[in-house]
Amino acid sequence: MPVETIRWVGGVGGHIELIDQTLLPVEFKYIECRTTEQVWEAIKVLRVRGAPAIGIAAAMGLVLGVQDSTAQSFDEFLQDLREAKELLQKSRPTAVNLFWALERMERTALENSDLPLGELKARLLREALAILEEDRQSCRAIGRHGAALLRDGDTVLTHCNAGGLATADYGTALAVLFAAKEAGKSISVFADETRPLLQGARLTTWELLQAGIPTTLICDSMAAAVMREGRVDAVIVGADRIAANGDVANKIGTYGLSVQARHHGVPFYVAAPASTFDLRLEDGSRIPIEERDPEEIRRWGGRQIAPDGIEVYNPAFDVTPAANITAIITERGLIEEPTTGKIAALLENAEQGPFGRAE
Amino acid sequence: MPVETIRWVGGVGGHIELIDQTLLPVEFKYIECRTTEQVWEAIKVLRVRGAPAIGIAAAMGLVLGVQDSTAQSFDEFLQDLREAKELLQKSRPTAVNLFWALERMERTALENSDLPLGELKARLLREALAILEEDRQSCRAIGRHGAALLRDGDTVLTHCNAGGLATADYGTALAVLFAAKEAGKSISVFADETRPLLQGARLTTWELLQAGIPTTLICDSMAAAVMREGRVDAVIVGADRIAANGDVANKIGTYGLSVQARHHGVPFYVAAPASTFDLRLEDGSRIPIEERDPEEIRRWGGRQIAPDGIEVYNPAFDVTPAANITAIITERGLIEEPTTGKIAALLENAEQGPFGRAE
Repeated sequence: MPVETIRWVGGVGGHIELIDQTLLPVEFKYIECRTTEQVWEAIKVLRVRGAPAIGIAAAMGLVLGVQDSTAQSFDEFLQDLREAKELLQKSRPTAVNLFWALERMERTALENSDLPLGELKARLLREALAILEEDRQSCRAIGRHGAALLRDGDTVLTHCNAGGLATADYGTALAVLFAAKEAGKSISVFADETRPLLQGARLTTWELLQAGIPTTLICDSMAAAVMREGRVDAVIVGADRIAANGDVANKIGTYGLSVQARHHGVPFYVAAPASTFDLRLEDGSRIPIEERDPEEIRRWGGRQIAPDGIEVYNPAFDVTPAANITAIITERGLIEEPTTGKIAALLENAEQGPFGRAE
Repeated sequence: MPVETIRWVGGVGGHIELIDQTLLPVEFKYIECRTTEQVWEAIKVLRVRGAPAIGIAAAMGLVLGVQDSTAQSFDEFLQDLREAKELLQKSRPTAVNLFWALERMERTALENSDLPLGELKARLLREALAILEEDRQSCRAIGRHGAALLRDGDTVLTHCNAGGLATADYGTALAVLFAAKEAGKSISVFADETRPLLQGARLTTWELLQAGIPTTLICDSMAAAVMREGRVDAVIVGADRIAANGDVANKIGTYGLSVQARHHGVPFYVAAPASTFDLRLEDGSRIPIEERDPEEIRRWGGRQIAPDGIEVYNPAFDVTPAANITAIITERGLIEEPTTGKIAALLENAEQGPFGRAE
């Protein structure tokens, strides 16, 4: 059973509970968020992380921002909503699901501007819960589509955490593994530890252990050697934003893995829901890349591991060109050898359009 | 000025002092080794590390093992020597300089079996000091040959620590940078942190800061992105063992870097003294690869970073095929696009033959 990464407690006027992922794997603990500021902080320091989960947290964070609003008119209410939205937008710049979810919430407000404000608040909560429920369905569908790519006995290498902890349910990359296992296939995993914040070591291994999938933890620098030894049948990763042409922003190290996979003839898959596509961006060069605090690399667990004052470059993401990607696995099906045309075609029939549909 | 990584104190009957590199960069401290066992431990846990420095430590460790010998005959003495040698050989399996230095010490004993045992002990200490002095000369010569490959303004990416701390003097890979700087060239560096033991973050950055060479620390997984951004003009690394055909065993992650360098059209250089070649091994597939304790990856600074019981694969080294290497920089000159023939030709004219010369 997947863990419940984030949930809403108590109906209208309620609050968020989310797993504080900075404490895993040592401690499994839910924390409460009762204000937009608390949600902003939780996203910023990665208590909640993973593109889909960030989207859900942001939508719920917006609900927290308006549910106690004392606005007397829709315009005043909209002002409160936009304040909360602006704060949440500043939490992390790369994952597009964050912006997508916030835009969707604002649009819902605008489309229901005639409702009494009390009802509008309830409507917004329903929208946030719908985003969560859709993500749950997406995870299952991604798992189904992706599992067909794996054979019994395959070993998959993954990077960072694109599991249940990154979503409302089964995850994206890991959903493929869970679904393959449910389909009776025996699958093993190499998990990159994923420096600097070790989401692979801390979170992915924890999820896979719980699911009973044999997993071997390696340092990021070992992936190439393991591929050369012929021990990897496929690489599967998640995504934080995908440009119109299929270029993928994901956790730093993903691009290097894609080069290694190509060099060693290993298929390279990206698993992500449609909400990860940002069709306003022609290609990956336009995706803003978050640079994080140098102290994340200079120190670990309070202990100094590099000299004071050493320069550090700490991009949280990199961009993998579409040419290095064997297929993108979405809830609507596969996009093999992704191109602008194939992506547009798949997303076109969506009931729920992706953020920033090119028009 | 280079640091004195390891030194002999007090003539015959003296002892070793070496920098405890596990404490850097926070603490700079020499420890004393007065027994072979202490040297074995120091090598095993990486208080002293780097292929050339391990060779020197082993030679001196052998001196410690015999200097208090109460043997009455050469045969008894040789037995004491071989006991010490066997222990030291078990410290780390990959760096060939360790075995090379121990063989050389044993050969020196055998060639001087007619000396009174007191004189033989002094002779062995002189041999260990000669190994140290030759390494010092090698470092300078490697620096000279390598510096010619760099242009003013170049940025070099390096992995692990192949600096003064890995040798008796200027290092191997870093010697090239130090020599280029002395020649008036402005050089910048990206230093891979080098998981799991962070020799890049802890040691290389420390040395380069001291030398006034602008250095940016990155996680290993960022090297590919930095190369793609066009910010790397050359990769230079050290080596722990080089097979007859030019395949190079070096710190885990080196192979992956060589693939990235190739993919991005960046020259890839290996800097190593002749004592690193093991001509008994036809190619790199024969090089034994040390696997280290899983706890090095499961824990950091006493803090748990992965679930209990998770499988870990922790090879300390990988093998880079000669085909990925632009040139090997030795104290005797460059071997460009290394092949068995070119390597044999360069090593042939050596006064001091490499270990295991193919005969």
